[in-house]
Parts: sequence; structure tokens; C-alpha cells
Amino acid sequence: MKHYLNINNLDNLQNTVQEAIELKKDELKFSELGKGKTICLLFFNNSLRTRLSTQKAAQNLGLNPIVMNFGSEGWQLEYEDGIVMNKDKAEHVKEAAKVIAQYCDIVAIRAFASLTDKEKDLAEVVLNNFKKYAGIPVVNMESAVGHPLQALADAISMEEIKVPHKPKVVLSWAPHPRALPHAVANSFVEMMQLQDADFVITHPKGYELNPEVTKDATIEYDQKKAFESADFVYVKNWSSFNDYGKVVCTDEKWMIDADKMSVTNNGKFMHCLPVRRNVVVADEVIDSENSIVIEQANNRTYAAQIVLKKILEDI
Amino acid sequence: MKHYLNINNLDNLQNTVQEAIELKKDELKFSELGKGKTICLLFFNNSLRTRLSTQKAAQNLGLNPIVMNFGSEGWQLEYEDGIVMNKDKAEHVKEAAKVIAQYCDIVAIRAFASLTDKEKDLAEVVLNNFKKYAGIPVVNMESAVGHPLQALADAISMEEIKVPHKPKVVLSWAPHPRALPHAVANSFVEMMQLQDADFVITHPKGYELNPEVTKDATIEYDQKKAFESADFVYVKNWSSFNDYGKVVCTDEKWMIDADKMSVTNNGKFMHCLPVRRNVVVADEVIDSENSIVIEQANNRTYAAQIVLKKILEDI
Amino acid sequence: MKHYLNINNLDNLQNTVQEAIELKKDELKFSELGKGKTICLLFFNNSLRTRLSTQKAAQNLGLNPIVMNFGSEGWQLEYEDGIVMNKDKAEHVKEAAKVIAQYCDIVAIRAFASLTDKEKDLAEVVLNNFKKYAGIPVVNMESAVGHPLQALADAISMEEIKVPHKPKVVLSWAPHPRALPHAVANSFVEMMQLQDADFVITHPKGYELNPEVTKDATIEYDQKKAFESADFVYVKNWSSFNDYGKVVCTDEKWMIDADKMSVTNNGKFMHCLPVRRNVVVADEVIDSENSIVIEQANNRTYAAQIVLKKILEDI
Repeated sequence: MKHYLNINNLDNLQNTVQEAIELKKDELKFSELGKGKTICLLFFNNSLRTRLSTQKAAQNLGLNPIVMNFGSEGWQLEYEDGIVMNKDKAEHVKEAAKVIAQYCDIVAIRAFASLTDKEKDLAEVVLNNFKKYAGIPVVNMESAVGHPLQALADAISMEEIKVPHKPKVVLSWAPHPRALPHAVANSFVEMMQLQDADFVITHPKGYELNPEVTKDATIEYDQKKAFESADFVYVKNWSSFNDYGKVVCTDEKWMIDADKMSVTNNGKFMHCLPVRRNVVVADEVIDSENSIVIEQANNRTYAAQIVLKKILEDI
Repeated sequence: MKHYLNINNLDNLQNTVQEAIELKKDELKFSELGKGKTICLLFFNNSLRTRLSTQKAAQNLGLNPIVMNFGSEGWQLEYEDGIVMNKDKAEHVKEAAKVIAQYCDIVAIRAFASLTDKEKDLAEVVLNNFKKYAGIPVVNMESAVGHPLQALADAISMEEIKVPHKPKVVLSWAPHPRALPHAVANSFVEMMQLQDADFVITHPKGYELNPEVTKDATIEYDQKKAFESADFVYVKNWSSFNDYGKVVCTDEKWMIDADKMSVTNNGKFMHCLPVRRNVVVADEVIDSENSIVIEQANNRTYAAQIVLKKILEDI
Repeated sequence: MKHYLNINNLDNLQNTVQEAIELKKDELKFSELGKGKTICLLFFNNSLRTRLSTQKAAQNLGLNPIVMNFGSEGWQLEYEDGIVMNKDKAEHVKEAAKVIAQYCDIVAIRAFASLTDKEKDLAEVVLNNFKKYAGIPVVNMESAVGHPLQALADAISMEEIKVPHKPKVVLSWAPHPRALPHAVANSFVEMMQLQDADFVITHPKGYELNPEVTKDATIEYDQKKAFESADFVYVKNWSSFNDYGKVVCTDEKWMIDADKMSVTNNGKFMHCLPVRRNVVVADEVIDSENSIVIEQANNRTYAAQIVLKKILEDI
């Protein structure tokens, strides 16, 4: 594998999930693979899980991580071609990407959606410019439109539980006071499209995700009906895609509570975290035995580690 | 040892001090002990000595340090139970602590007192919530009410000098333009309570420390009288405990100068640093041969290293 | 070598350049040299190339890097002697430097010119105080008046191309919207004074560099005339030295374009980066085959590595 920008960059999701589960049993097995090699982790946005788990994964592979908060520690980047750079941007991504590639073997990037410029967000300006100019493998640590390391960790988490039948998986929108990006939801949908499952998306009208991502996925506007017999309920807030970046509904009735979970098939509660308790999900649900959010976070290490392993093997 | 939250978590202070002095002679002796293990250093506040010495100590033990400025790089944490999280806090400590524990074997935390909410500060909300939820060893890198790594370094520094009699040790308040926490003073008092010494605390009226910490310690309001025949003078500013977090006196006469030191028994000047010259202490004292502030800072490495060694041996 | 504060700290520039070129062919050859030793990288200013390349160089030598953003993560430092520290500075450089030296074997520092206090800038207050008090080797990662790691990388880059005659090298000022320091230009001039070359400096009147640095260097106020037959054109903006820190001209005609480069001897375009495209240099020049800016950035690693190697060999 050259880059990991999207879950579809994996040759085979199911095999990768199995390999990650194997790796988790003996996480230092390939601790010589990255020796003498360096990964730069560039953060244009805050992070807890991604920051720690990707460093941990790199170190498990003997790969040397250099972490940089690009916003506060580096220079503001220009992404436009042919522009006269006499304003606030001190460096062009053409130079920045090529320069960073002189110092490391892999570059991992976190750069959230603006939620103000739909066209730019959809074009994945940061990630694609680094891919174009750096010439080294690029890993997506959550971009404008995707979070494929999270989606891979989610796939690992579901496989570890494995229900003895074709599972029913629900992706449910939940309320949130702020406008959030679509990245996690998009990558979860894309990952589910590679799985043999009964997959349903539920959200209030107006929260339809990008139809180029959801394609022919089932959308059910009645949340409780969607939850019926679900084996996994994956919860996430996102802002409107049509009315781009807007909060068009904050209906508290969409919060996940025990009553809604009661119609599932003893369903597992999933969330990528951070999560706002008693806004997105009631304490009674996230604190229940059926909540697997901590194990999802744990699997972020092994998702990153299997991805970095595949990239290192191809360098 | 499981956690190191307080100097009293040590089985035996005197033995630990001796072990640290041994370690200092051969600091890479246990460089295999932490191999393949990770410590997360979480900073909610600024730091120089703690940041560098704890990293150094970890590396001396082969332990991999991951440093995170939690305030600027992560998410704002909620500590209240059962709250509806629809304001500015994006993540609950319940998740944050459990998640961080997925990526490391030990977590070390710096979270200063607010000095505005006495009850919360005394409850050690940050440290105790991490202890409660993380499930891995927690190390105090200065909390609301204690700084036991500093106190252990101070004990090492006094032992290295060792006077040939029961020492007289004075903890003296000194003026400062800002309101400072009680953590360093508290831990120094608690450490002295484990020592065979003649211990006196001196400060202006109104600066009494928490009586649950000082217990039956001798308090002498006449600073110069307190200094008489002292072998060690430990200086620190703190704000009022009774009139919580307030600066109730900035009397310049309390600054430590050569005249005051002249009544000591050739006493050593100690301070945890950073220190404001010519406010807390006159140049003539901190620059004298009797100032051991740099060696105290040096011993921060060995205090942290012996603590981490004991924790690693118990994991 | 004890310290690396200035290009003149090198015993012999030409030999050092050859050693760096050898090191570049086998960058992990001395990966045991720094084992068990630590370098602190202190950043008082932002950085991309210096931050990444110095870490990379340290790791190539087995040296353990600890990075600290001194401004945001530490305490504000006082540099004046004998001052009453009752304002905003919490720690004196005397303590900070000595303390940092307890935790590392080498300290590298980036502290830009203020451009407001000429006397202080020329006195290299930060660097010289650390040199005076730390007692361990100090490396300049760009100070008020010099950037000798950049100058060494530039020397390496020119040697790699090597023209078959005494080269003509031009240092050209170029326009920029902001006031920039003289550090890069100064160190380039000092490096060129150690080379057998025909060296010309060109800039608008009013942009004369410090005459104590340029000494008897040729200054040509006609930029195009200066460029005639040049083998290397090194471009950099700087603010006025006489009218200290002021932008006295932003004449767009001084931008480097293909027309100007056409009168050179197939000259190479050089810049330390970051660079503002179409302000300092036209896209057509920086994107041409004759632009060697990326290789200059690459050579920052080997400049830092040869410097650290020499220091480690002398500890």
C-alpha cells in the first residue's frame, strides 16, 4: 500500500481486520520493521486518540515519530496555485510538502473540514496537496471528508464481537450543540459498504450525508424503527451537508437512551469519541456493558499499526 | 507501588532516598526495565523542570515518553457526574482517562490548583478522577495540593549534604507579586514529617497553610528568629489558604537576604524554582555557595526515576 | 568543537562540508555515538525545517531529542542582571540555563531578533546567556544575528553542484511584505567569506547589512548587473539594518524572475525557505530545474548532523 487516505486504499478490509487482530496479540512482533525510519505526524487540529494511538503504533513498529502542531509551531500554508503571496500565508504547500518529505519516510496528517467552503472541503485540499507534492506515503489522521483509521478500528471492534448471523448495523445521527464535520460518518459508511451486513442510516430530515458517499444505503428517518433488532448502533453527530456546515436540528429526542437501545438485539453502543454525555448519549447507555467505546479507542492503535506496517512493507 | 500521588505513597522515604542516590551514580543501570512500555505525560499547566526531568527519567529507564499539552492539544474535560454536556466541555474525564490508559502503561499529570474553588482544589478533582477511571498507575507532576516529586528531590538534596547532627530545617514564606498555589509547600511539610529533624514553618500571619497538612508543626511568625541555627532554609511563596487564593501581604521585608542567612548555621538555601530574584531571594543569597537550587533541580530526574522504577517493578 | 554559534566555530569549512557529504551517503553510520545522551531543542520561535531536521539529525546519531516550545510551555525569562523581578518574567536565564543543563548534554536554541532593540539583538542576549550559564555545548538554531546551520547546509548544497571554475555567487535582496531579520543573510555572507568565490551582494540602497559582517564584500546596487554570469543566486529578504527593523522599500522590480536569471551562467536559484511565491520569486524560477531549494532543505539534516557529531566527539 502506498497511501492510506481512504478505507478503500486497503486491498481487502476483512483480511486487514484479521491481521490487525493478530497483531494485537503480539504488538511488538514487528518492532524491527520501522528501524531507522521516521514518521511525521502533522496536526492542523486538536486530537487525543489519534495523537496518542498513532505514536504508539509507530513505536510498536520501531518507527520514530516526530509530532508537530502545524498551526502553532510552523508557518501558515498557501494552497492556491499561481497566487501572489503577499498576505498572511508564509509558505506554499508545494515547498512544505517536499521539505517535510526530506526528513521522514511517511507523513500522517490531521486537517479537519472548514465547514464553510464545501468545494474546498470536498476537494481534500490539504491531504491531496501533500499527496501530490510530498512524494512519500501519506496517512489520513482525519481529513475534511474522511477518518479511515477510525473506520478500520470500528471494523476491528465489530469483528472482535462477531455475531453468529449477518449483523444489523445502524449509523445514527445524534444531537450536538456545535457544527461537526462528516468525516467519521463518511468513513463508517464507506467501511460498511465493504461488509456483509444489513446497514441502515438514521437521521432527521435535512441531515442527509453526501449522496456520493451513501450511494444506495438505506435511510430510515424513524430512529426507533431503525434500531429494531440492531446488533450494533454507531452514533455520531454531523452538521448538514446540503445546507453546508449548518446545525439544522438539535432535537433532544434523537439522543440515544436505554429505551431506544431496548428494541435492539442486545445491540452494542459505538462512538468514536469524544462524546458529550447526556446530549449525544445518556449515561445509562455509555456506562452499560453494551458500550464498546473504550475498546474502539484501544483498536485505534492496531488500526494505525496494521496500516503503517503495510506501508513500511511497500517502501 | 501502584500510584505516586503523595510522598506518603512511598513505603519508606529514607530507603527511597538512598536508592535514588545509588541510581544517580549509574543512571542507565535499569535502562531495560521500561522497554516496550509507554508513559504519557499530560500537562494542563506550564512546566520546565518537571517536563524535562520526567522525560529524562523515563528515557533512562528505557520507558517511552509521550508528551501532551492537554489544554491546547486535546479537548476540554468535564469532571462532573451526570451533567448534560451542552456547553464548552467536549469530553468527560471518564472516557479520557480510560482511553489514555489504552495507549500507555503509566500516566503522569500536571494540573495546578485553580485557587478560586477551594473545595474542588482540595478534592484533587483532576488527579483523583484519572486515578479512579484510568486503571493504570498515576504519577503526580504537581497537582492542586501537592508536588511530591519535588519533595522527594528535596529530601535527596538534603541527604546528599547531611549535617552531622539532627538538622534544623525552616520552611519560609517569601513575597511574590502573584497568587501561587500551596502544592510545593504542602508536600515539603509532608516530607519533613517523615524526617528526624527540628522543623519550623515561618510566614506572616494570614499565610497559615492547611492545618490538616501542617498538623502540629511549629509555626514561628518571627522570620529571623525562625532562621536561627537553621541548617536548611527552604523558601517558597504561597497565597492565603484561609482567604483562599488571595495575596494578603507582599511585605518586602520577608525577602531572603544575606543578613537573614547570617543567623543560620551556615544554612543551605533551597527553592524549587522558578524563582523571582530580588523579590523572593536576593542575588547575594541565590548566587552564594550555600545555594543548592541547581542540585535540587538536578535531583528531580532521580526522584522521578526512582518513582517510575518502583511503579514499573509493580506493574 | 564546544559550541556552534557561528559558522566560524568550524575548524575548517571545506573539510566539514566533505564530511557532511560522506555522512549523507550513510546517515546511520554513527547511530551509536549519541547513545544515552540527550539534546534539548528550545524553540522561542516557530520553525519547520529546523525543528524537523535537527530532530532527524539527533536521531540519526542515536541522540535522544527533547523538544520544548519555550514561549508557550515554559516560563518567561529575565535576562537583565540585578533586576527586581516583580513584573511578568517568572524565571531568570541564570537558573533556566543551569537547570536545563542538568537534563541534557547539548542544548540547541532558536531565538529570533526582536528587530526593535538593535543593541540587544547584536549582543545575542539569549544565546550568549545560555552559553555563559549552561556550561554545556550550545547550538544556534537561528539567533538574532545568525543562522549558521542554514549557512552550512548552503555550503553543502553548492559543493554538491560544484562548477568547474571559481564560482560567481550573488546574494540578492528581494521584496517581502513584512520586516524580516538579518540572520540568514549574515551567516551566508560569513560562510562565503570562507570560500574561494567571486561574491557579490545586491540590494536597494538602504538595505546595507551590518558592515561588521559584510566587511569588504562587493555591493552592487544594480541587481541585473550583479546577476551577470552568476553560478548561484541566493535570495533573501531582510529589513533595514541602519533604520533598524524597518521596511524601507518593497519595490516589486526586485523580485527574482526568469528574465533576471537569464543573464546568469545557467545559475542555480537558492533560498532558505519559507518563501513567498510571486513576491520574493516568480513561480517560473522556483519551479525551474535550476531551483535547488528542496535540496538545501534536505541538507539541513546533514549540516546539523555533522555539527552534532563534532560536538559529541568533544564532550
